Amino acid sequence: MSSDQRIPVAVLGATGSVGQRFIQLLEGHPWFRVAEVAASDRSAGKCYAVATEWRLTAEMPESARGLKVKDLGEELTSPIAFSALPGDAALEVEARLAKAGHAVLSNASAYRMDPDVPLVIAEVNPDHIRGVERQKANKDWAGYIITNGNCSAIHLTLTLKPLYDAFGIDAMLVTTMQAVSGAGYPGVPSLDMIDNVVPYIGTEEEKMQEEARKFLGSYDGGFKPADFGISAHCNRVAVRDGHTECVSIRLKQPATPAEAIEAFETFRGRPQELDLPSAPKRPIIVRHENNRPQPNLDRDVENGMASTVGRVRECPVLGLKYVLLGHNTVRGAAGASILNAELLKAEGLLPV
Amino acid sequence: MSSDQRIPVAVLGATGSVGQRFIQLLEGHPWFRVAEVAASDRSAGKCYAVATEWRLTAEMPESARGLKVKDLGEELTSPIAFSALPGDAALEVEARLAKAGHAVLSNASAYRMDPDVPLVIAEVNPDHIRGVERQKANKDWAGYIITNGNCSAIHLTLTLKPLYDAFGIDAMLVTTMQAVSGAGYPGVPSLDMIDNVVPYIGTEEEKMQEEARKFLGSYDGGFKPADFGISAHCNRVAVRDGHTECVSIRLKQPATPAEAIEAFETFRGRPQELDLPSAPKRPIIVRHENNRPQPNLDRDVENGMASTVGRVRECPVLGLKYVLLGHNTVRGAAGASILNAELLKAEGLLPV
Amino acid sequence: MSSDQRIPVAVLGATGSVGQRFIQLLEGHPWFRVAEVAASDRSAGKCYAVATEWRLTAEMPESARGLKVKDLGEELTSPIAFSALPGDAALEVEARLAKAGHAVLSNASAYRMDPDVPLVIAEVNPDHIRGVERQKANKDWAGYIITNGNCSAIHLTLTLKPLYDAFGIDAMLVTTMQAVSGAGYPGVPSLDMIDNVVPYIGTEEEKMQEEARKFLGSYDGGFKPADFGISAHCNRVAVRDGHTECVSIRLKQPATPAEAIEAFETFRGRPQELDLPSAPKRPIIVRHENNRPQPNLDRDVENGMASTVGRVRECPVLGLKYVLLGHNTVRGAAGASILNAELLKAEGLLPV
Amino acid sequence: MSSDQRIPVAVLGATGSVGQRFIQLLEGHPWFRVAEVAASDRSAGKCYAVATEWRLTAEMPESARGLKVKDLGEELTSPIAFSALPGDAALEVEARLAKAGHAVLSNASAYRMDPDVPLVIAEVNPDHIRGVERQKANKDWAGYIITNGNCSAIHLTLTLKPLYDAFGIDAMLVTTMQAVSGAGYPGVPSLDMIDNVVPYIGTEEEKMQEEARKFLGSYDGGFKPADFGISAHCNRVAVRDGHTECVSIRLKQPATPAEAIEAFETFRGRPQELDLPSAPKRPIIVRHENNRPQPNLDRDVENGMASTVGRVRECPVLGLKYVLLGHNTVRGAAGASILNAELLKAEGLLPV
Repeated sequence: MSSDQRIPVAVLGATGSVGQRFIQLLEGHPWFRVAEVAASDRSAGKCYAVATEWRLTAEMPESARGLKVKDLGEELTSPIAFSALPGDAALEVEARLAKAGHAVLSNASAYRMDPDVPLVIAEVNPDHIRGVERQKANKDWAGYIITNGNCSAIHLTLTLKPLYDAFGIDAMLVTTMQAVSGAGYPGVPSLDMIDNVVPYIGTEEEKMQEEARKFLGSYDGGFKPADFGISAHCNRVAVRDGHTECVSIRLKQPATPAEAIEAFETFRGRPQELDLPSAPKRPIIVRHENNRPQPNLDRDVENGMASTVGRVRECPVLGLKYVLLGHNTVRGAAGASILNAELLKAEGLLPV
Repeated sequence: MSSDQRIPVAVLGATGSVGQRFIQLLEGHPWFRVAEVAASDRSAGKCYAVATEWRLTAEMPESARGLKVKDLGEELTSPIAFSALPGDAALEVEARLAKAGHAVLSNASAYRMDPDVPLVIAEVNPDHIRGVERQKANKDWAGYIITNGNCSAIHLTLTLKPLYDAFGIDAMLVTTMQAVSGAGYPGVPSLDMIDNVVPYIGTEEEKMQEEARKFLGSYDGGFKPADFGISAHCNRVAVRDGHTECVSIRLKQPATPAEAIEAFETFRGRPQELDLPSAPKRPIIVRHENNRPQPNLDRDVENGMASTVGRVRECPVLGLKYVLLGHNTVRGAAGASILNAELLKAEGLLPV
Repeated sequence: MSSDQRIPVAVLGATGSVGQRFIQLLEGHPWFRVAEVAASDRSAGKCYAVATEWRLTAEMPESARGLKVKDLGEELTSPIAFSALPGDAALEVEARLAKAGHAVLSNASAYRMDPDVPLVIAEVNPDHIRGVERQKANKDWAGYIITNGNCSAIHLTLTLKPLYDAFGIDAMLVTTMQAVSGAGYPGVPSLDMIDNVVPYIGTEEEKMQEEARKFLGSYDGGFKPADFGISAHCNRVAVRDGHTECVSIRLKQPATPAEAIEAFETFRGRPQELDLPSAPKRPIIVRHENNRPQPNLDRDVENGMASTVGRVRECPVLGLKYVLLGHNTVRGAAGASILNAELLKAEGLLPV
Repeated sequence: MSSDQRIPVAVLGATGSVGQRFIQLLEGHPWFRVAEVAASDRSAGKCYAVATEWRLTAEMPESARGLKVKDLGEELTSPIAFSALPGDAALEVEARLAKAGHAVLSNASAYRMDPDVPLVIAEVNPDHIRGVERQKANKDWAGYIITNGNCSAIHLTLTLKPLYDAFGIDAMLVTTMQAVSGAGYPGVPSLDMIDNVVPYIGTEEEKMQEEARKFLGSYDGGFKPADFGISAHCNRVAVRDGHTECVSIRLKQPATPAEAIEAFETFRGRPQELDLPSAPKRPIIVRHENNRPQPNLDRDVENGMASTVGRVRECPVLGLKYVLLGHNTVRGAAGASILNAELLKAEGLLPV
């Protein structure tokens, strides 16, 4: 392993659903290698293969099997920590690691709306990463925390970005039909999902409404949210992976469906300019069939890192409407953190 | 049977999904008895028990088993015909029967937007039934057609009615998650529904948008649609029965969630005044748990004839939002036709 | 309520899935009324309506809503206790109540194979209830425990009974496809059931194998299991209610499919003779279509108290094969206990 | 394309479910390239991208998009034809093509039990391919037909092979839980699969029972089926891909679970010896967790070309039991044909 020049990284909460996705996506990564895994004390001390009931289709990567699971309270040696911790654990652990000098790339909600913490989608607001300098100063930390957002908010905002830039956004409504993997394992009981829909996901609507505005807002020594109205209805449906979202939007400068499609299809961001390893070639894909996107058919396009848009058409009330779909545990979670880490490295902001 | 004083009725399209629901709901009806069943020529001539692959949970009513299935081209002797025909067959058959003097209570879409044909929800616009006189004159028919609406439009409009009356409606958006029984049998392929959502149902959005306005409009010698903006997103999800709909609405006179709930819960219509046999005691039921209504738990309340509303709350964009759910083949189809027939009888407009 | 002459009963574990089913099935019962509910200390002290998240389709019975939930450690005043307790709680609580003089009708597995405890299906081995006298003597209890079996074992054995009586059984194999409600709530995670099958249910195969033989065995001062080979494969599938089981069987005296069907259809047991309130008119129903029984269509026949059999045909290896289906939380759980209680009352063995 | 030295192949029934799987699996194949696609006259004349509603997760291969779909009646120029035709079309088309000199690798059932046609699993009975010489002589054809079997029979037999060789088989029972993709598209209605099981698949049980014995039989100038008893129960469950099968078996020479596992894990066949391009490294994979294999987690192992076995244990009735799972449209259909073609090429039996 001495010849492996890649940057060692830790995965926090490595045995859970999103943690497993981190392990899977980091396997064979050109810049990073998983050197440490940490989890709750129930798993600590065991080797990863024993501590983890692997639930992804492909098999557990060979390189991860033998890693000893550390307790969340232990010190880490890797300069970078990817966090898949639940909110309550994240609050304490992430701050401690950031204070100790680690770059913490967090998928947790604990710090997303913290006024000192960047909430970043690499294609949407890459300039927000500059906020880490102010964070370190304000919090007196040697390292920092950067968060990616809620899974539904990430895909929504990725599709809003080209519309926001080209036409401005005045107001929007979104109704989601979300996959069960977003709730982890065991997560949603099967009695709630067989022949059923649950029209409620705790705090999800609030997250979508506030995160979308922070993502699309500005950073100039402080984060200023974008100024538009947003309302979300969040539902859980019997789908394993892939959130579907129905959007109606009132643009500041009205656009035809054709103009919106043009904006979606030509959109490229900083990860595409920098040709980052995990960047999708096309961040937004437009399907032209009238019954797409569908979770089962479209969630894995661009390795799960793109959002797919379809049914772009006029909305009789707000002007424009469309459907979007994205993989909630790849681009909506672990993949988003990894892409953020790649951006930080390319921009020279990693502590290595 | 000579002592059975009930009005004989025919069911058209009796072997299909909605046709079976008609047979089931009319079993033991105090005013009507199924005397004739008609279906496409594939079934004609067989007895109903042989022609029909019964797919409802309870067993086929004994009284229907021995009925000989008539061809759709045959004459009928029953004064009332309930139609569960597909759109193309409905166009010709329903007109022929109306011309011949039958009261046709149709679940088909063929005549819903015809300027001479009432589109009626018994609680919402019972006065529209007066339009049959003008229809008979204009079309030179001895009988008439009255339609109930699209399944999603019926439940939506039932919940809009008290808001429309109390506060006025300026504009609204609705996103549906619809059950597969709405597409009949075989209908939606299982490959489209296992681990999937289909974000499209042909012509459903247009129907919802135009029917809701006709239902809530006025009749004064002609049907004048209500004047508000409406936009629908329609989706198919892996649910057997029960459509769930997420609504955001801008009222003319803003109302708090508590005021809206008051309007929903106190709403009663003409069927409740007349105490019609199929009328739900409470046309709209409000659930106060944050995760209701759910199709599996709420679709059968009031024998499937009510709409259930939940999560009534403020909408940051349009002012008010809520979720509604209703049984699509009972109140959303066969049950709506039967309730309309009961209303016609009570108001003295049946040709018997 | 002073005029209510019905026997007061308690339901243990009343807030869970099977407990709710007890409450539902006992509503309006002619002989019994729910006077007490008990559950774990988390619920104790609350009224039933507050302590229970009701998950059955119909609404919570009005009469149960206001009952105060007792702690499992409290004394009960009702002479009869229906137990829906989990195995570990059942072990202590049921014994304590039996010792104190209550008749405990248990759905739990704790005492099923106890050599002093009858394991009873009312149609299969009603004579085993006589074992309670010996139980009381051996255990020095004032009351007693009678158990019904595992949900899959009950339906299997109900269909085996007429074959056993008419032809004798030499050996049999059964493969189950079981509904998720059998695991309670939250129970089976939706990630295990969407687009999936789980070919394992802990201890279920062992239970089926040993319980079927005890049910069909004899009681003559001791329980002697029936002597035949039995092997079970148990699987969990994406069905809410209703276990489907594929059976192949070698009879001692070979029977044709027609002879087996005759035995199934003419089978009647002691509950039918006594015309007990919860007894199905036909304990076993035979469907003759080649694609039945199906859980969604057949589980509710006879109010969920019958087993439905189909596809009775020759087995090239063991001689005879068929498919059976039954409602797992009605006849397979709460309903079985209630029917046993009715049998005990009719036979004069209740302590009232 | 002049530099492409690969053998041109045709895919018959190319627009359907299994046809699409052929196109997908042949993309980038080292020995074969899809040069022709043929389908029913509804599609004929269109280019493949237009004629086909692609339903596999990955996108349609670029190389197939522009192929003109030929009518099934047209002559083909490719020496090899992979057939995904339905049974009735296969009967005529496959014979015509074989007569004209093509090697037809068929997934259809039409000729599987023909006494002159080999029914081949490359690992199980590779020597049966020698039967093509006799077939050509008997039928006076310039080419030949080789069939692979029913999807459930292939995976069952692949796991039986090492047991058959090591211990001999006396009798066995199998109960399947089959995925809906086996019925094509639209195939199984969603109303049959949401909250349901269908305990019947037309002719499936007969196919399994007769094909398993032909596969494991001998060829010595004629096909002689293996001599053991076999009985199948076939069920359809709500799974997209991957058939699960519960097997109980009586071996001629009894084996312990450990001995059976040893036989499964060490099994290698002719494709592994020849290192054929589509051969799985391990034809049978044994999982040691008690809740595996599961369709969602195990169907794609070895690119869908292996069978996964689990829960190998004693059967109280027949001696040994286990669960197996395999991908029904890869190893159970298109992939099996392709592997057979590779075997034929390696053995010098292709007409090129």
